[in-house]
Amino acid sequence: MDATPLKIDSANAFQTLSGLLDDDVAAVETLLTERAASPVSVIPNLSGYIVSAGGKRLRPLITLAAAKACGATEMAPVHCLAAAVEFIHTATLLHDDVVDESDLRRGKPAAKNVWGNSASILVGDFLFARAFTLMVETGRLSVLDILSNASSVIAEGEVHQLAVMGQLDLPTEEYLRIIEAKTAALFEAASESGAVCADAPEEHVRAMQAYGKNLGLAFQLVDDALDYGGTTSVIGKSVGDDFRECKITLPIVIARRRGSADDKVFWDRALNPETQEESDLAHAIHLIRSTGAAKDTLAEARSYVEIAKKSLQALPASPYRDALSSLADFCVDRAY
Amino acid sequence: MDATPLKIDSANAFQTLSGLLDDDVAAVETLLTERAASPVSVIPNLSGYIVSAGGKRLRPLITLAAAKACGATEMAPVHCLAAAVEFIHTATLLHDDVVDESDLRRGKPAAKNVWGNSASILVGDFLFARAFTLMVETGRLSVLDILSNASSVIAEGEVHQLAVMGQLDLPTEEYLRIIEAKTAALFEAASESGAVCADAPEEHVRAMQAYGKNLGLAFQLVDDALDYGGTTSVIGKSVGDDFRECKITLPIVIARRRGSADDKVFWDRALNPETQEESDLAHAIHLIRSTGAAKDTLAEARSYVEIAKKSLQALPASPYRDALSSLADFCVDRAY
Repeated sequence: MDATPLKIDSANAFQTLSGLLDDDVAAVETLLTERAASPVSVIPNLSGYIVSAGGKRLRPLITLAAAKACGATEMAPVHCLAAAVEFIHTATLLHDDVVDESDLRRGKPAAKNVWGNSASILVGDFLFARAFTLMVETGRLSVLDILSNASSVIAEGEVHQLAVMGQLDLPTEEYLRIIEAKTAALFEAASESGAVCADAPEEHVRAMQAYGKNLGLAFQLVDDALDYGGTTSVIGKSVGDDFRECKITLPIVIARRRGSADDKVFWDRALNPETQEESDLAHAIHLIRSTGAAKDTLAEARSYVEIAKKSLQALPASPYRDALSSLADFCVDRAY
Repeated sequence: MDATPLKIDSANAFQTLSGLLDDDVAAVETLLTERAASPVSVIPNLSGYIVSAGGKRLRPLITLAAAKACGATEMAPVHCLAAAVEFIHTATLLHDDVVDESDLRRGKPAAKNVWGNSASILVGDFLFARAFTLMVETGRLSVLDILSNASSVIAEGEVHQLAVMGQLDLPTEEYLRIIEAKTAALFEAASESGAVCADAPEEHVRAMQAYGKNLGLAFQLVDDALDYGGTTSVIGKSVGDDFRECKITLPIVIARRRGSADDKVFWDRALNPETQEESDLAHAIHLIRSTGAAKDTLAEARSYVEIAKKSLQALPASPYRDALSSLADFCVDRAY
C-alpha cells in the first residue's frame, strides 16, 4: 500500500475513492445483479430498477475502503459484505417509500408507483434476506452480528420517527437519536464490518466504527438541510419532500424554536397534514434561512465530519484513509 | 431419552408435543418477549399484540422437537433458533396483512388496523432483524444460511403469488411451487435447522428437512381447503379470506377445471376484484364441495403427511419422533 498522502479535492472525493477501488466496485456491481436474480421476474425487474437508479453506492464504497484502509488482502468476502450492505440499504428504501408515501426516489418514480406497494414490500424482504445469505459467505459470524443489530436499530429509528410526527418541540437530542438509528447505524455497520472483514485489530475496528457513525450523522443532517435548499438535480429528489411528509427534522426544530409567536402558529399549522397548504413550503424555506436554521444544521453536520476525520488518525496512512477523509468533507461540502 | 413409542391421539398431538417440551417452550416464550423489547414503545406493543395473539407456535415447536429427536443436549442455542423462527414467521404475517389488505388475523383485528400499515411494515423489519441476531447466538453459520435462504424463498413465493393473481387456469404444479416457497420453506428450515443445531448426522438432517417441507405443503393445502369450509372459531380467521382476496388456491383450480362452461364464467367473474359480489362466496363453497375439490385438496395434503411421517423413520425412536408423527396427522385431521 502506498503511504504517500494524496491531495484530494473534496468535490472529487467520490470519484477518487471509486477509482482506487475500481475492480472491487465492479465485483460488487456484479454481485448486486447476480444475487437479485430470481425466476419470479418482478424481483429482478423491480430490484434492478432501484439498484441501478443512480444510487451513489456510498455505503458499500465505505465498506470496501474501510477494509482496504485496514489492510485487507483477501477481498472476495469484502465484496459479499459490501453487496449485502447495499441490499440492506435498498430494502430500507423500498419500505421507506411505502411508509413515507413518497412518489419520487432518486429523481425517478418510486418503485411502488410502478409495481405497487405489495411488490415493494416483498422485494424489500427478498433483498434483505439475500443480504444475510451474502454475509454468511464472508464466513464471519461477527459481521452478521453487526449488521443484524444495525438492521433492527434502523427499523427502531424509523418507528421512532413515525412516533414523533407532529411533535414540533422535539428536543434536538431526540432528533439526533432518531437519525443515529435510522441513518448512522448503517454507515457505522458498513464501516465497522469492513474493518472486521479485514481482520483488523480492535483499535482500528473502533476507529472505523466511529468514522462511519459520525459520517452517517453528518450525512443525514446535510440531507435534512438540503431538503429545504438543495435542487432536484443535485440530490435526486424534490426539495420539500420532508416538509410535505411533515417530517420533524433539525432545520424545522431550530427555526421554530427561534421564531416569533406568529412563526410558531405557522409551523404548527403547516406541519399538520390536515392543514398544510401548497404555498407553505416557500415560507418555510424563508424562515429556515432567515433564522439561521439551515446554516446551523450544516454547522452541526460539520462538527460530526471533524470527529469522523479525527477517528481515521488511528489508522496507518494509506490512500484509502485519505480518500475516506476527503469523502467526509465532500459529505458536507455538497450542501454549499 | 425414552425409546418406548407413545400412543398419541392426533387431536392431542399439539398438547402432547408442547407437554414434552414444557421447559423449552417456556424459554422460547421468554425470548419472544425479551427480544421484542425496545425503548420505542410501539415496537413491543405491536409485536406483543401479534406474538401473543393465540398463534400456535407450530414452527418453533417443530424446531425444538427436531433438535430433541436428533438428540440435542444443549438446548440454549435451540431456544434462540426457535424464537428466531417464530420472529421470521411473525414478520411475514405483519407484511402479509399489509400486502393482502386483510383486516383480521387470528380472529383479532390485524395489527395494521390498530397501528397502521407503516408501523406493521417497520415492526416486521425489526423482528426480522432480531431473528438474525438470535441466530448469531446459536454460533452456527449453517443455521443462518438455512434461514436466510428460506426467507428469500418465502418472499419469492409471495411475489409469485401476487404475479398469478387472476390466472384461473394456474397449473397445479405452479400452485404447488408457490406454496412450497411461501409456506413449506419455513417449515423445512425450522425443522432442518433444529437438526443442525443438534449436530445431527447428515442423514438425520435430511430426514428432518423432508419432514418439515412435506408437513408445510400439507399444512398450506389444508389451510386453503379450510378457507372454504372451516369455521372462524377453529382457524382464527374468517372463512372466505382467500376468496375475497381473489387468491388462486388449489380448491379453486380443481373446482374450475371440473366445472361446466357456466361454472367457468362464474369463477372468472367472482375471482376478479372488480366484479366479485357478496353472495359469490356461498356459491363458490357449493361448487368446491360438489366437484370434490375440497376433498381432493385434503387428499393431496394427506399424501404429503404420509411422506413427512415416512421421513421420520430415518431417526432413532423417541417420544419426540412419535409426537412429530402425530403432529403431521393432526395437521390434516383438523380439517375434518
